Amino acid sequence: MRFHTRKWIKPEDLNPNGTLFGGSLLRWIDEEAAIYAHIQLDNVRVVTKYISEINFVSSAVQGDIIELGMVATHFGTTSLTIQVEVRNKLTQKTILQIDKMVFVNVGEDGKPTPHGKTKIEYAKDRVKD
Amino acid sequence: MRFHTRKWIKPEDLNPNGTLFGGSLLRWIDEEAAIYAHIQLDNVRVVTKYISEINFVSSAVQGDIIELGMVATHFGTTSLTIQVEVRNKLTQKTILQIDKMVFVNVGEDGKPTPHGKTKIEYAKDRVKD
Amino acid sequence: MRFHTRKWIKPEDLNPNGTLFGGSLLRWIDEEAAIYAHIQLDNVRVVTKYISEINFVSSAVQGDIIELGMVATHFGTTSLTIQVEVRNKLTQKTILQIDKMVFVNVGEDGKPTPHGKTKIEYAKDRVKD
Amino acid sequence: MRFHTRKWIKPEDLNPNGTLFGGSLLRWIDEEAAIYAHIQLDNVRVVTKYISEINFVSSAVQGDIIELGMVATHFGTTSLTIQVEVRNKLTQKTILQIDKMVFVNVGEDGKPTPHGKTKIEYAKDRVKD
Amino acid sequence: MRFHTRKWIKPEDLNPNGTLFGGSLLRWIDEEAAIYAHIQLDNVRVVTKYISEINFVSSAVQGDIIELGMVATHFGTTSLTIQVEVRNKLTQKTILQIDKMVFVNVGEDGKPTPHGKTKIEYAKDRVKD
Amino acid sequence: MRFHTRKWIKPEDLNPNGTLFGGSLLRWIDEEAAIYAHIQLDNVRVVTKYISEINFVSSAVQGDIIELGMVATHFGTTSLTIQVEVRNKLTQKTILQIDKMVFVNVGEDGKPTPHGKTKIEYAKDRVKD
Repeated sequence: MRFHTRKWIKPEDLNPNGTLFGGSLLRWIDEEAAIYAHIQLDNVRVVTKYISEINFVSSAVQGDIIELGMVATHFGTTSLTIQVEVRNKLTQKTILQIDKMVFVNVGEDGKPTPHGKTKIEYAKDRVKD
Repeated sequence: MRFHTRKWIKPEDLNPNGTLFGGSLLRWIDEEAAIYAHIQLDNVRVVTKYISEINFVSSAVQGDIIELGMVATHFGTTSLTIQVEVRNKLTQKTILQIDKMVFVNVGEDGKPTPHGKTKIEYAKDRVKD
Repeated sequence: MRFHTRKWIKPEDLNPNGTLFGGSLLRWIDEEAAIYAHIQLDNVRVVTKYISEINFVSSAVQGDIIELGMVATHFGTTSLTIQVEVRNKLTQKTILQIDKMVFVNVGEDGKPTPHGKTKIEYAKDRVKD
Repeated sequence: MRFHTRKWIKPEDLNPNGTLFGGSLLRWIDEEAAIYAHIQLDNVRVVTKYISEINFVSSAVQGDIIELGMVATHFGTTSLTIQVEVRNKLTQKTILQIDKMVFVNVGEDGKPTPHGKTKIEYAKDRVKD
Repeated sequence: MRFHTRKWIKPEDLNPNGTLFGGSLLRWIDEEAAIYAHIQLDNVRVVTKYISEINFVSSAVQGDIIELGMVATHFGTTSLTIQVEVRNKLTQKTILQIDKMVFVNVGEDGKPTPHGKTKIEYAKDRVKD
Repeated sequence: MRFHTRKWIKPEDLNPNGTLFGGSLLRWIDEEAAIYAHIQLDNVRVVTKYISEINFVSSAVQGDIIELGMVATHFGTTSLTIQVEVRNKLTQKTILQIDKMVFVNVGEDGKPTPHGKTKIEYAKDRVKD
């Protein structure tokens, strides 16, 4: 699993209890997973169909840096399944895990269409540095 | 199940495909469920612990009005389980369903503490009009 | 009057004095009233024309849950008048009252057009639970 | 009346009909008026108490530049009354007018307290250029 | 240089250290400069091409009122150069200075096109009050 | 240089011309650079002091995925200099480059304090996958 996008917990991300608002976290995950699916399937028309159960293992507070990890676990004919983990960047402690987020590849007519992909492809530039 | 909060899908809620951004929807649900849990448990210190699988049944587009429905399905000693449905206000078509969102009642020390509630309580004023 | 949409006062809704920012409250009211007008007039092309005087009776602080109540008080030929009250969900204390918000029903050409409605219609599903 | 703050209507400020969302406009006005009151009363503890009727004279669309004008019309013992006009920067066409926005000067205890001001004071630097 | 737009530092504008988040400040400057360029060039198709070095002289905290000053310093054939200063409205202390922000006037085809302007033009109404 | 955080250009990120709003981009860069500085200096009290000239090489449109790259280029006694590049994730085309963003390490008193770091440290987990 690779961890790319990071977030810095700012006052606008807190719930009234002063900890990370779960809704903000879910919003970040959905965007990052959609980006991951777009890159893997090389198609911007990708829609979220299903999210498996979500366990909130620990929380985060203002000033924490968290990172979002994604890895493709299954390439269906028209779908892509992604596994997600969010953790504290500095302590590496898990904040949240999602076993399966399923995205469907759709055509211009909005209907599921085969994506022709069967395995993860890494951008070459990530290998270099 | 009662449907209270409504949302009007505005340009800022869309994903690049022009349909409702799933992350915005999840953010709204988490806030509404937290509000519901706070009211039922009469405690502002309530944290999300678990969300069961989420099925995105249909989508929404700019200008749609959607409504969020919540109902408590189980009162544990320190927890509360809520069932969620989001639907289009005008067509009544289901957009998303979540079987279980589990919130835990915590004390000032942040640890689970019994909430003493066993059933749904409605605000009287809702009966009137 | 029915109270539907609820808001949980989060840090991003506060003014620098630490109380609910009036501008956020006005924004929420305008959205909720527009939703109400859309539902009653069964038309998404509805525009705000007039808001009568607004009294800020009391304020709200972080963590408070507020609810927005709306009721149609007059159906003109092309207009709809709505009365608004915002109150604290738990204490039922009034936060703000607006006697009249007037919306105008417009056609595709952007000009006022008769809406043909004469009384409040409730969605059946609200009667059930 | 002086027009200071300007806004550029962006996609995030639109309602689903594609015109300026009234709620965004009200939010901008409340912030600008609060800033004006703070400067005139030389006190950051200033709260909105009353807004007189609001007429939405015309609208604005994406890409328009609007400007917000404020002028103090009455200095009470503990209050300040402000008149507001919002207009299109380029066409000078009025978008919205508010005759009276009343702010109250409060002390550290949150109670109304005399502000000792009786007339408008301009920052010198505005005279220069 | 004229200072028009003002901002009131709210909780949502803070970084986790409790001071004004630099990113929010840069966002406000870019919007204000674009507005200034649009007004001077009388064209909404104006794009940012270059920003000279930025010195963060001092910071701001919650409740501060800041104002953004702009002045055109050079009219090229297709470009406009603007000088920027942000300062605390009450103390007049400089927060940030930018020597040059260069905008390019583009046509409907997105390519640079002469704007025909050679000097600053002030809206007459600013002279009056 | 490593590229971590990615953004998906959504309607709320556009300027009225329909291209990526420069202010949003600057906001994202400032957050990402601050996160990078925090991780490298192992201190959350890090403030932006200087940004060298910024060239907007190309733009981005709705639906594009962009990625932000950062690399530390100089460790001063109390400062850290970072080089930045933003590019289109799929085409690898450069959108913006910044040669130097300088952050200063401050102590609890808000004054510059030595950070004791002299070179880039990578989190081990990034080596693995």
